[in-house]
Amino acid sequence: MTEMSLFEAIHTQRAIRRYKPDPVPDEAITKILAAATRAPSARNCQPWHFLVLRDAELKRSFGEIYWKATLDGRSDGILEKDTTTFPKVGFDYAEHLGEFPVLIIVCLEPTHPSSHDPFLRGASIFPAIQNMMLAARALGLGACFTSNYRRREGEVKALLGIPDDVPTAGCILIGYLGEGEHFGGSRRKPVEEVTFYDRWGQRSS
Amino acid sequence: MTEMSLFEAIHTQRAIRRYKPDPVPDEAITKILAAATRAPSARNCQPWHFLVLRDAELKRSFGEIYWKATLDGRSDGILEKDTTTFPKVGFDYAEHLGEFPVLIIVCLEPTHPSSHDPFLRGASIFPAIQNMMLAARALGLGACFTSNYRRREGEVKALLGIPDDVPTAGCILIGYLGEGEHFGGSRRKPVEEVTFYDRWGQRSS
Repeated sequence: MTEMSLFEAIHTQRAIRRYKPDPVPDEAITKILAAATRAPSARNCQPWHFLVLRDAELKRSFGEIYWKATLDGRSDGILEKDTTTFPKVGFDYAEHLGEFPVLIIVCLEPTHPSSHDPFLRGASIFPAIQNMMLAARALGLGACFTSNYRRREGEVKALLGIPDDVPTAGCILIGYLGEGEHFGGSRRKPVEEVTFYDRWGQRSS
Repeated sequence: MTEMSLFEAIHTQRAIRRYKPDPVPDEAITKILAAATRAPSARNCQPWHFLVLRDAELKRSFGEIYWKATLDGRSDGILEKDTTTFPKVGFDYAEHLGEFPVLIIVCLEPTHPSSHDPFLRGASIFPAIQNMMLAARALGLGACFTSNYRRREGEVKALLGIPDDVPTAGCILIGYLGEGEHFGGSRRKPVEEVTFYDRWGQRSS
């Protein structure tokens, strides 16, 4: 099999939120994790730990916390399952999260070169997460990054035994594409709209 | 030309800090920026603006600010150019930054879905930056992300006309590999060392 090109992976990556129940081969998970570990980080600190959830009961419990945290964040009630807006707002996956084939919780070392700066802390973890998203795409697997459980992060840590001082960055969902899902076609602003040359506001060099 | 595979790009990406003076084709810069714009972001907010610096005088001025900011951060004096430690500490590139072929300052929309949370703000910009690093690699170009100028971010904004309320995420250096540089071979922890299964501390599922 010819491996997918970088540019094809980048241009067709898309957040996938519905998955088949089919299991994901261990080999694919290892490739995705290996891709993560190649990412750059501040002074090569590699502050990552990956917690791979495959146990059905633990996933279900995590999914319940995730769902509660999702509801916590929606005081407008549009997540009520009996309203017609529910499936349209992109949150319908939240109810099924605990049934997805693989969930990977991305954790961070408590201290590392950028740990004092909350924004720059991300420079040492989100590149690894993006490598995982692209690796999943190249392997024909859907993926989605979400941090919506973080309002109840303490409950997640208690469930999975994550130490209090270990921050979590978020959770990556992985699985084969469910009904109605497809790669590619996500809407993006064109390069010309988001690029200046030499000075802010200058459209050509 | 066969395009580089995703996994080859990921596994051979490496921070490059010495560049040839050769110019980088516009087409390559556009491909790198297009890769950035395909990245995921919270609710597809795409909070990015890219400021491409190619003007020699502006690069030189930015390089001077960068060098001062680098010195600001090193009270131990190991950046003194006449010490033998200088070239060993990985900061020697800082002195030459203003001479590199292309510098891209990555800026953020002042407000977007994650802008209230400094850590999560990064989830909507560092994936785009990682796409740029990988795209450069696939095009045979070196790249490096740095934010070391941020202690003097105000001076950078004044130089380039970046509005006060627009945060910058960092700067990406781009160019062909200089003497002694090569792709690949960066040291990383093995997957087994950074992966747990189902519960923190559990090495196999």
